[in-house]
Amino acid sequence: MNLPKPIKNLIDSFERLPGIGPKTAQRLAFYLLHVPQEMLDEFGDSLKNLKKDTVICSICFNVSESDPCPICASQNRDHSVICVVEQALDILALEKTGRFKGVYHVLGGAISPLNNIGPDELSIRQLLDRVREQESERVKEVILATNPNMEGEATAMYITNEIKKLEINELRITRLGQGLPTGGDLEYADEVTLQRAFEGRREC
Amino acid sequence: MNLPKPIKNLIDSFERLPGIGPKTAQRLAFYLLHVPQEMLDEFGDSLKNLKKDTVICSICFNVSESDPCPICASQNRDHSVICVVEQALDILALEKTGRFKGVYHVLGGAISPLNNIGPDELSIRQLLDRVREQESERVKEVILATNPNMEGEATAMYITNEIKKLEINELRITRLGQGLPTGGDLEYADEVTLQRAFEGRREC
Repeated sequence: MNLPKPIKNLIDSFERLPGIGPKTAQRLAFYLLHVPQEMLDEFGDSLKNLKKDTVICSICFNVSESDPCPICASQNRDHSVICVVEQALDILALEKTGRFKGVYHVLGGAISPLNNIGPDELSIRQLLDRVREQESERVKEVILATNPNMEGEATAMYITNEIKKLEINELRITRLGQGLPTGGDLEYADEVTLQRAFEGRREC
Repeated sequence: MNLPKPIKNLIDSFERLPGIGPKTAQRLAFYLLHVPQEMLDEFGDSLKNLKKDTVICSICFNVSESDPCPICASQNRDHSVICVVEQALDILALEKTGRFKGVYHVLGGAISPLNNIGPDELSIRQLLDRVREQESERVKEVILATNPNMEGEATAMYITNEIKKLEINELRITRLGQGLPTGGDLEYADEVTLQRAFEGRREC
């Protein structure tokens, strides 16, 4: 059976999304055949306007409706602590903890030679500029919150070296703690995680 | 962090889709921030036009660009055999086998008292009309291809009874074969499947 063109088009669009295979794309498209037209219009408009109504913050490279973004513009945040993340989505996760009161810096990925992503493809130079000459407040700590995988570790190591070259006094460079995830199971933890958990053990 | 409104809207739209949770919706929305605007426009348009450019075939209730649909209009299909399916998506799966040359009838679901879906919510009456007085060719067989679960079985049973009441001579009512799925593993098959496999065993 040749699928009707409008359905085929939508399936194609869904299939281009990460983690959505042909079967899921089909299921979603056929599901949408049964929703009200207004919902389709709403969905369609939110897709088309996604990038039109958002900007990238010129300070931290987070996605935002305004430039600078609300976090960079806020008086209530500690501008002397910068948390460096790979992508904007990571900020969302960190903000949910409600624990961090500093500001952020979005790298736009991690160093990954296999994917042709070197330091110049990321906003590392801009981070160094911020550390060196931030106008609002002198930076006292850079928290490297890149992912705890090979690319993230390499990126953290590279940035650490670059910041150390700036020779700024009393600047801490830290990395998020590693160990067992809460709710996890010792039995299923991998060796590296267990090793890190030993290294990071605390007095009770 | 308050998410920018355009991103929030898109996440909400994605979350309404079946099988897409909050985390996946977030990931998809942030992924789409990095695709070209043309692709977003294309995606948006295909959503908005999905229902505008499709119709429901008045004979078999399949989704189509024309009424009657290409299968119902085709001279090469055997109009004396009707395969009854729950939804249009099932036709896609069956057509991929290339094995069935008859026509279809889409019920629009299965009888499910818990979800308030009775026989009147499905296109069962129209199926009975087709069986009774199809103009093109007298119906010789009705294959009930509803899902092999409780709702599908109940629906098949209900339709069987209703068709039998019509007292049409030489009309076969069949159900798709049940047993072990190809590539499956005996060890992991449930009892009912194994029981059906025994019942449906064949001579070698």
